[in-house]
Amino acid sequence: MDRLTVIKVGGKVVEDPESLNSLLDQFNKVSGYKILVHGGGSTATEIADKLGIETKMVDGRRITDAKMLQVVTMVYGGLVNKQIVAGLQARNCNAVGLTGADLDLIRAKKRPVKDIDYGFVGDVDDVNTRELRLLINENIVPVIAPLTHDGSGNLLNTNADTIASEIATELSNHFSVYLFYCFEKRGVLRDAEDESSVIFDLDTTLFNKYKNEGVISAGMIPKLENGFRAKHKGVKEVLITNTKNIATGKGTRLV
Amino acid sequence: MDRLTVIKVGGKVVEDPESLNSLLDQFNKVSGYKILVHGGGSTATEIADKLGIETKMVDGRRITDAKMLQVVTMVYGGLVNKQIVAGLQARNCNAVGLTGADLDLIRAKKRPVKDIDYGFVGDVDDVNTRELRLLINENIVPVIAPLTHDGSGNLLNTNADTIASEIATELSNHFSVYLFYCFEKRGVLRDAEDESSVIFDLDTTLFNKYKNEGVISAGMIPKLENGFRAKHKGVKEVLITNTKNIATGKGTRLV
Repeated sequence: MDRLTVIKVGGKVVEDPESLNSLLDQFNKVSGYKILVHGGGSTATEIADKLGIETKMVDGRRITDAKMLQVVTMVYGGLVNKQIVAGLQARNCNAVGLTGADLDLIRAKKRPVKDIDYGFVGDVDDVNTRELRLLINENIVPVIAPLTHDGSGNLLNTNADTIASEIATELSNHFSVYLFYCFEKRGVLRDAEDESSVIFDLDTTLFNKYKNEGVISAGMIPKLENGFRAKHKGVKEVLITNTKNIATGKGTRLV
Repeated sequence: MDRLTVIKVGGKVVEDPESLNSLLDQFNKVSGYKILVHGGGSTATEIADKLGIETKMVDGRRITDAKMLQVVTMVYGGLVNKQIVAGLQARNCNAVGLTGADLDLIRAKKRPVKDIDYGFVGDVDDVNTRELRLLINENIVPVIAPLTHDGSGNLLNTNADTIASEIATELSNHFSVYLFYCFEKRGVLRDAEDESSVIFDLDTTLFNKYKNEGVISAGMIPKLENGFRAKHKGVKEVLITNTKNIATGKGTRLV
């Protein structure tokens, strides 16, 4: 099967012009078929703030009422997504910016209200890879914003890590899929203060040990759980790294 | 050749949820291949205003400085475009939202500064129909926002009427293209106050006569000039109508 690399980058990376350009240069060097999934970042908070819409976060997740949904639709689906696409086109990379509503790519269910009402936040139900494969096979590079839809006309705010792992998993029936989670550090660190303490190979036993010892931070846990699940379901390789290393493939490998 | 309908709708139609739903219902009834091109409308002005960015218009065209470009990218490429896409998907219409940067669809040149510096406003240079035809032939419905790019990483604000006529013209080599311009009235009126005074057939002689007599309003003139040019270059039919009549094809026909 052909190689396909799914690269997820956080919002921070794409907000600063310098780090965005560096990301796009690196991404452009990745050979073979590829998909970029991007997060939202703090621009949504800034814009919401200026529009007089209050940002509420619970455990790092954004509470998305109707007005906040408009903000994230604008910022993730418009501003961030189209700037990436224009930047890739300038590098002769034939990108197309998509949300989960486009091509009915990702259907989600509005998260049920239990203790917390997250509002218009979607949990992924179904990834439709038919049109995605059509694009990929034409050497088109999908750039995916963290938005899905419910099939009834509503867009939903959806975690970008989850979107990346769901897409990687579904496409692993058709491609040899490499899933890269990029963040600020070179990988999962044994010591948060020491960039040279990268854990190169991480298995579930070690993960559980480090989790219990508090070595792996709270924010990294769902990302790694997503990653292990994707690997278990057929993704060939899952790597946690920074954007500088996406072309070389160095970082923390889930094994 | 197969029939392809290119429908351009103004910003006003898509801003109000009721008229948007009515448009999407009507659009969904149009048979054969189709493309929707949408304008921006006053939401960009509202959002810019709230963000403390001043809106400057010259002859109905928006002066687009760097900050205003961010606003129109958010509003046209994100909010408006994705709401239309989600609404069409809810009607089982397989829509994909695109700007001119996506798939390198529309390259434009930043308008040279003469009397007025329009800022990041683009004049269309080149329409690339290859990927567009690939989508259309898969029964995918492109929904196009009024944004183009310069190939060097910059998005540009571009008139939606022009985008619609350029796309219609380029695709007329491959399809039998019908170009519909939708606005508030049932067609071009002999008497602006009388909705029943629709001019059903308008040729260039009559157009020039009415233009000189002031019967045709200033805003309608560039739209009609665009339309006549498209018809001259191979578009099979150009119709000026309102969104209620796009499935029936009643209105002012350019002949």
